[in-house]
Amino acid sequence: MDNHPYAVCIEACDACAAACDHCAVSCLQEPQPKPMARCIALDVDCAAVCRLASGAMARDSEHAQAICALCAQLCEACGTECGRHAMEHCQECAEACRRCAEACRHAALHGSVGAP
Amino acid sequence: MDNHPYAVCIEACDACAAACDHCAVSCLQEPQPKPMARCIALDVDCAAVCRLASGAMARDSEHAQAICALCAQLCEACGTECGRHAMEHCQECAEACRRCAEACRHAALHGSVGAP
Amino acid sequence: MDNHPYAVCIEACDACAAACDHCAVSCLQEPQPKPMARCIALDVDCAAVCRLASGAMARDSEHAQAICALCAQLCEACGTECGRHAMEHCQECAEACRRCAEACRHAALHGSVGAP
Amino acid sequence: MDNHPYAVCIEACDACAAACDHCAVSCLQEPQPKPMARCIALDVDCAAVCRLASGAMARDSEHAQAICALCAQLCEACGTECGRHAMEHCQECAEACRRCAEACRHAALHGSVGAP
Repeated sequence: MDNHPYAVCIEACDACAAACDHCAVSCLQEPQPKPMARCIALDVDCAAVCRLASGAMARDSEHAQAICALCAQLCEACGTECGRHAMEHCQECAEACRRCAEACRHAALHGSVGAP
Repeated sequence: MDNHPYAVCIEACDACAAACDHCAVSCLQEPQPKPMARCIALDVDCAAVCRLASGAMARDSEHAQAICALCAQLCEACGTECGRHAMEHCQECAEACRRCAEACRHAALHGSVGAP
Repeated sequence: MDNHPYAVCIEACDACAAACDHCAVSCLQEPQPKPMARCIALDVDCAAVCRLASGAMARDSEHAQAICALCAQLCEACGTECGRHAMEHCQECAEACRRCAEACRHAALHGSVGAP
Repeated sequence: MDNHPYAVCIEACDACAAACDHCAVSCLQEPQPKPMARCIALDVDCAAVCRLASGAMARDSEHAQAICALCAQLCEACGTECGRHAMEHCQECAEACRRCAEACRHAALHGSVGAP
């Protein structure tokens, strides 16, 4: 799949989904999860949309661009929230979200034709 | 969950996802699946987005409205394609898509507050 | 879809997924979410598996029975954990999990042929 | 996430899901998709279970091993079917399924502790 037109963005979505899932459970294991409630909720949303986008691109769906546009929006929101917390799992998730948001914005604009 | 603010739209999304999944496999079992290729592809996309939207609403996600807006778009595309085919599974799927598109448009505009 | 061979179990899975998602976010909004960490984690798992099972049955997948067997296992674990907590969202989720576990065990044993 | 205990298996699941999704749409675009109907159906099932397993491992779910055992079973079935067809997308998918089945069998037996 390395030569799939959407390969870069699929990989960014898969990595972001895993980082979000890992961040969510790590937040729950913090001594005080209460301040992490919004972070956990966004992690769950973002992971779900990243996996949807990854599949849509792998299927070269005619709606892949619209789905990537939504995914970019979720990744930005999740990355911003995660970026506010110092824990390593949040910082790693914030970085994965930023990378995925950028890849999804690119895919949303250019589709599989404009893949880098 | 019957008194969940998004109950009507969650139910419409679940019903649409099941109708799409059922339509996809029924199309594959037709003697000539080739003319159904786009219908199958849209069924798979639409089922995935309906299940995403259903979950986002059940979690009262802050992105539920944006997700419902996308879901309405997918449902319209899938319903239009299914509506072109005379088979019962396509006609039932087209009807489920139309109902879900309407419920999702409403949810996208009004959120959980404006639930009917 | 009301006459779908798996209709009863599909509906139980959809209802359970929604109850789990609702329970997860409600747990997060409790004043003290820490004791709810395992409940939230199981809610997220259970919702994901219920949506997978629902789709597999709607597609009349040849692996639907194996997937329902796994789903029954997840629902039992989640229902047991939710049943330990007095909050209404947990009690409702426990009940949805119990109903879904029963429907999935039946589907796992009998497939679409033995649908009630 | 490269040092995540399940990193190898998460990556195998993500790669397999993408290969299955790609294979499904490629089969639909064949001049004669009818002989590919079972391949397409298994691709859709396998992609769904791979994404479920990937998420469960990323969340270090207490049910990750049971989910990986099911995923191995789906991957074997899908890989065997894909392996019967000469097209490049089927052969690539068969190989991704075989790698994922092996990684999932290992994860199912050893959990995150026994990760290679």
